[in-house]
Amino acid sequence: MMAILDENSREQVLALCGGIGGAKLALGLYRTLAPGRLTVAVNTGDDFSHLGLHVSPDIDTVAYTLAGLNDTERGWGLAGETWHFMEALGRLGGETWFQLGDHDLATHVLRTRRLAAGETLSQVTSAMAGRLGLHARLLPMSDDPVRTLVDTEEGRLAFQNYFVEHHCRPRVTGITFAGAEAAKVQEDVLALLGDGALAAIVICPSNPYLSVDPLLAIPGLREALKASPAPVVAVSPIVGGRAVKGPTAKIMEELGLPVSSRAIAEHYGDLLDGFILDDADAADATGLGVPAVATRTLMETLDDRERLARSVLNFASGLRRHP
Amino acid sequence: MMAILDENSREQVLALCGGIGGAKLALGLYRTLAPGRLTVAVNTGDDFSHLGLHVSPDIDTVAYTLAGLNDTERGWGLAGETWHFMEALGRLGGETWFQLGDHDLATHVLRTRRLAAGETLSQVTSAMAGRLGLHARLLPMSDDPVRTLVDTEEGRLAFQNYFVEHHCRPRVTGITFAGAEAAKVQEDVLALLGDGALAAIVICPSNPYLSVDPLLAIPGLREALKASPAPVVAVSPIVGGRAVKGPTAKIMEELGLPVSSRAIAEHYGDLLDGFILDDADAADATGLGVPAVATRTLMETLDDRERLARSVLNFASGLRRHP
Repeated sequence: MMAILDENSREQVLALCGGIGGAKLALGLYRTLAPGRLTVAVNTGDDFSHLGLHVSPDIDTVAYTLAGLNDTERGWGLAGETWHFMEALGRLGGETWFQLGDHDLATHVLRTRRLAAGETLSQVTSAMAGRLGLHARLLPMSDDPVRTLVDTEEGRLAFQNYFVEHHCRPRVTGITFAGAEAAKVQEDVLALLGDGALAAIVICPSNPYLSVDPLLAIPGLREALKASPAPVVAVSPIVGGRAVKGPTAKIMEELGLPVSSRAIAEHYGDLLDGFILDDADAADATGLGVPAVATRTLMETLDDRERLARSVLNFASGLRRHP
Repeated sequence: MMAILDENSREQVLALCGGIGGAKLALGLYRTLAPGRLTVAVNTGDDFSHLGLHVSPDIDTVAYTLAGLNDTERGWGLAGETWHFMEALGRLGGETWFQLGDHDLATHVLRTRRLAAGETLSQVTSAMAGRLGLHARLLPMSDDPVRTLVDTEEGRLAFQNYFVEHHCRPRVTGITFAGAEAAKVQEDVLALLGDGALAAIVICPSNPYLSVDPLLAIPGLREALKASPAPVVAVSPIVGGRAVKGPTAKIMEELGLPVSSRAIAEHYGDLLDGFILDDADAADATGLGVPAVATRTLMETLDDRERLARSVLNFASGLRRHP
């Protein structure tokens, strides 16, 4: 069995991914693996209908990031974006709390139109990836609607209202994935998990509670991940007891959890075959009951992303269950 | 009875209007009449669903024109418009034959959303006029869908496909207003026609066949116009045997009609109480069977628009049936 990083390998890698943070590692994997080897299954719990348009924030973030079109300064959306639509919308009295750039809007208008014409979100997403020239498969976690709802001390909020409108300010008391129980795992994802060509499953350093749990809430996915012969490796989003970006640490505190990589590994539990955490949290690597390795997980540069991707894939190679 | 142009008059004026050409006179009337005196009933036969959005080109043209937001150089759309959405749409493989500017798009997105939520086109249009600060009432000819279909030697084309996609090139053999027979005249328009405060009805110099006939095709409107005590005055879109802009002359030729103001007056027939045509066509004013006056009808400047509006209103004042 050759190592996953062997340049002649044609084995497949599956990444599970949310938005910004996870997309950084997805980009590292994308640039490290030969064309056709990477599949990214993306959280759609953040999807919502806004102004009559179907917005899939995480799919778009991953697609734009892999295509090199994302704005790295602002941290979200497209580079060179303009905001004339929003200005005009504001003058007409429309809702402006969720920013839709002029270029980005084309994605939402086309997606909405194709979904209304009967295409699945998988088909729309694949077509988008094709138009952007991506050599990875980009798939929603499900073609069925799953909606992340955040229970807070100020009541239940739809994800985008919590995240964007309220800036993650309300204290979180619980998280619900409405529709998950009736949803089916995207069929190509399920097929890949049963495919002998799958060499590694990578849980990207997205927010476990908001961005990865929606995938794991879909009946059968957790079981299929465990049953897959490919090792499951998660990368911790915690660095030195803090979240690199976003509300992960704040939510962990509000849910009464220690803000640590150990708590992240325990959250994923027996799903994991391996765990990668930051050098700053190396002490958390012992006694986890699962192989763990500490490395630099902060992804500031493109080199950081590629180096972490190689570390993850090398680590996964060593975890494979040899016959 | 005071003249319509008397500055103390509070009498109402109703303008029937299509897009670009008609909107010029509507602007003249708007600037000439005191706030609250003008109602514009606009053709919606050109409305269509594009990319899942409800586009009402003539309503938008009139609204933007009255608000002073229209692009007078390009001749359509908003001044200072940008086209980033269209560029992104093209990259994603979307349809680009119909140009939607970034600012303009806000109008369509909001309208589509409000219609989907159950508002009528009248409500959406009134709200838009309010947001733009207009002191005229802007109303669609009907809240029911009427669609102008152009029969050509290359088959039947929806209006925008004929007008924009095919640049009015195919030879016209006939024009159909689908849905008109089942449509109801917008109720405020109908109420105004029976209101003693209505002092004049102005048919703007829009294309009679494509932009005014859709209104007249709605059952009851023609009868209500004739029954109204207010005089009906049409302004010819023909100047010196040619159309100022657009396909009016081409369509008249293709339908076997002489390209003349006389043919326009005959087209409206007994609907008219008065007719205004250009000085260049003054010879057509005689023997029409209806009072006619020749003046400069070309509207190049804002002064032209206001001067023609005053001519129309003065002429209408003289046509009123005194008790």
